[in-house]
Amino acid sequence: MIQKYYKISIIGAGRVAWQLAPALESAGHAIEEIYSRRQQKALALSRQLYQADVLKKPDFSKSHAEILVIAVNDDAVQEVASGLTLPSADTIVVHTSGSQPLAALQGAGTEYTGVFYPLQTFTYDQQVNFAHIPICLESDNSHALKVLTKVAKSISRTVKLISSKERAVLHIAAVFACNFTNHLLHMAEVLMKDQHLDLNLLKPLIIETIHNSVSIGPQKAQTGPAVRKDQATIKQHMAYLKKYDPQYAKIYDMMTKHIITVNKKL
Amino acid sequence: MIQKYYKISIIGAGRVAWQLAPALESAGHAIEEIYSRRQQKALALSRQLYQADVLKKPDFSKSHAEILVIAVNDDAVQEVASGLTLPSADTIVVHTSGSQPLAALQGAGTEYTGVFYPLQTFTYDQQVNFAHIPICLESDNSHALKVLTKVAKSISRTVKLISSKERAVLHIAAVFACNFTNHLLHMAEVLMKDQHLDLNLLKPLIIETIHNSVSIGPQKAQTGPAVRKDQATIKQHMAYLKKYDPQYAKIYDMMTKHIITVNKKL
Repeated sequence: MIQKYYKISIIGAGRVAWQLAPALESAGHAIEEIYSRRQQKALALSRQLYQADVLKKPDFSKSHAEILVIAVNDDAVQEVASGLTLPSADTIVVHTSGSQPLAALQGAGTEYTGVFYPLQTFTYDQQVNFAHIPICLESDNSHALKVLTKVAKSISRTVKLISSKERAVLHIAAVFACNFTNHLLHMAEVLMKDQHLDLNLLKPLIIETIHNSVSIGPQKAQTGPAVRKDQATIKQHMAYLKKYDPQYAKIYDMMTKHIITVNKKL
Repeated sequence: MIQKYYKISIIGAGRVAWQLAPALESAGHAIEEIYSRRQQKALALSRQLYQADVLKKPDFSKSHAEILVIAVNDDAVQEVASGLTLPSADTIVVHTSGSQPLAALQGAGTEYTGVFYPLQTFTYDQQVNFAHIPICLESDNSHALKVLTKVAKSISRTVKLISSKERAVLHIAAVFACNFTNHLLHMAEVLMKDQHLDLNLLKPLIIETIHNSVSIGPQKAQTGPAVRKDQATIKQHMAYLKKYDPQYAKIYDMMTKHIITVNKKL
C-alpha cells in the first residue's frame, strides 16, 4: 500500500482533538484548519501544529481539506455536523464519538460520512502513543472507508471495522470495565480512609490484578471470598459494611451473589 | 541500622511461600527448613533454595530457625499454628494472611507472634519483585516487631504497621478494588463476546483508566454517563441490558445510582 497523505481539518479543540491532530501531523498528514466555538482553545491547539489556521466560523468553503474530523462532545455531534459549510461535495466528514451512531452525520450534506473512534481516554497534558490505541471505523461509503482505513493505519496498529450497533455495546462494556471499576476504587479508597489508610497501599495489588485479568482472562483470574464461596468471610464483611454504609453492603452483596451465580454455571 | 540476617523456616509451599522464600534468601537470610502437608510441593520449593531441608512433620525441635513463617491457606492458619513444635521458647511465629487476626497464632506456644502480610497476589510462574510490595506488620511484642521490621525492610521499601482491625477493612477494600473490578471485566467480556468482539479491544482503555485512577485519585478520574448525569445514554444502556440479562441491568442501575449519589454530595 502506497502511503498517501491527506489534508485534514479538525472541528473541536478538546482532549480528543488535542491528541489526534498532532498524531495525524506526525504521520505525515496536513492539518489545514481548526475550528472550535472556544476560539482560545483552537488558537492554543493551532500553536502545537505546523501550519493550521484557526477559523472563526465553521465555514470550510475556502478550505483544501479532504477530511473534516468532528471531535466535539458526544451530544453536540449532530448539531455541529448540520452547521458545517463543506469545502466540496466529496469531502469526507467523520466524528470521533464512541456513543454516537453514524447517522448523527446525516445533516452534514455529504454521502461521504464515517466514524473514526479512537478507543482511549485522553488528557491534555500527556501526549499519547496512538500506535497502541485501537481505532474503530465505520462507513456506509466504500470510498470513505478506504480513505479512513489508510488514515487510521497511518497512526495505529489496531484498526477495526465496528458497526454502530457493535459500538453501542462496546460503549456499555466500557462503562462496566472502566467507569464502574473506577467507582469501585473510589469505594475502596473511602473504606480505607476511614481507617486512616491510603489507597496507594493497594496500588501494586490493583495493578497486578488488572494485568492478570486482561492477560489470562477475568474468569480464570478471579480470586477472593466469593469465588471460594468462603461464607464465613462474606458474613464478616457484610456485618461490617451494614454498619458502615448500607449502600456499600448492598453493592457488596449484589456483586458477591453474581460472582457465585456465574461460577456455578461453569 | 546494621543489617542482621535471620534463620527462617517456612510452613507451607503454596504461592506465598514460593515467592517469599527466595526473596528472603536473596536478601541474605537463611531458609533452614520447609514443611508442607503436600511434601512434593515442599521438595520442589526446596530445590529452588540454597540449603533448605524438607521436614516430614511440623516438628522444629531440632531447627536453628529464629522465625517460623506460616504461609498456608487463610482458614488453616489457626490449626497449623497449634500443631507446631517450636525450636525454642523465644522463636518468633508469624502468619502471612490478610484475613486472619494476630490472635489466630495464640495456640503456637510462644508470646513472640506477629503478622507478616505481603499485600500482593502471587502466581507460581512469575518471580515478583518484593521491593514494590507493601508488607503489613503487626505484633503485640516489641522484640518480635523489631525483628519483623528488619526482615520486612530487607525485602521491601514499603513496610507499614497495620492492626488486625485495619487489616480486616483493608481486606474488604481489596475485595472491592480487585475481586469486584475483575468481575466487572468479566461482565464486559461477556457483553462484548455476544457481539463477537474481544475484550482485548478495551485493554488499552482499561489499563489507562486504572493508571489514571490510582495516580490522580478515583474521584477526580471518574468519567462516563453516570458522572455526566447523561440520562439519555443511561436509558439506552438500561433498555439494552434489561433485554440482554436483567442481572446486568440491576448491577448497571445500582452502580450508576451510587455514582450519581456520591457526586451529588461533593
